[in-house]
Amino acid sequence: MITSQSMKAALNRYVELFNLGDAEAIAALYAEDATVEDPVGSPLKQGRSVIQEFYVYAISTGAKLSLDCPPRGSHGDSAAIAFTVRIGNMKIQVIDVMQFNPQGLIISMRAFFGPDDIENL
Amino acid sequence: MITSQSMKAALNRYVELFNLGDAEAIAALYAEDATVEDPVGSPLKQGRSVIQEFYVYAISTGAKLSLDCPPRGSHGDSAAIAFTVRIGNMKIQVIDVMQFNPQGLIISMRAFFGPDDIENL
Repeated sequence: MITSQSMKAALNRYVELFNLGDAEAIAALYAEDATVEDPVGSPLKQGRSVIQEFYVYAISTGAKLSLDCPPRGSHGDSAAIAFTVRIGNMKIQVIDVMQFNPQGLIISMRAFFGPDDIENL
Repeated sequence: MITSQSMKAALNRYVELFNLGDAEAIAALYAEDATVEDPVGSPLKQGRSVIQEFYVYAISTGAKLSLDCPPRGSHGDSAAIAFTVRIGNMKIQVIDVMQFNPQGLIISMRAFFGPDDIENL
């Protein structure tokens, strides 16, 4: 099983790659048949190519991510980050939970934010 | 369905009740057959009375919680908080994800922290 420390390193890398605008490298952090539920309560996006398209779009908005506090691992196969997305004058406060397979690839991502976690500055 | 705002209010109340040391009131935030996985990767604790015992113990350690950033809701039935637990000279960095039933009671709590998220100051 992947270690707590390795999962947290992957999440730090995820934020870094997002801010570098590298959707392909982000998609490569995911397993081939991974799912993304972003936001939680919306239909699942499934498969690495669909996920890559999702990040191409997200990056094209000019969004930048900053961690609000250090990533959290677990005693199992999942880890979590709390961060703020800034897009122009918009601020979205999010917690992502990622589940990993034994090879260290993300198999599930869930993004927790509600309509009331979006703020126009 | 419970609103994103109501779920976040419940999580703020959760932290407040923990710091007041009121395990019974915390247990009352949970549904009768709720489950707690704390930390993620450990066996589930199930049922309100078992959950209340768990909080009686947690509170008896002198632990206090402080949010690291505002709670996050979702577009579904779940919400999340990032916080720090302080017990004497020990600091544990945690993200909790809570799922709610339509009556607004917690049916599942999962606490994300790994062995490497515990620090002795």
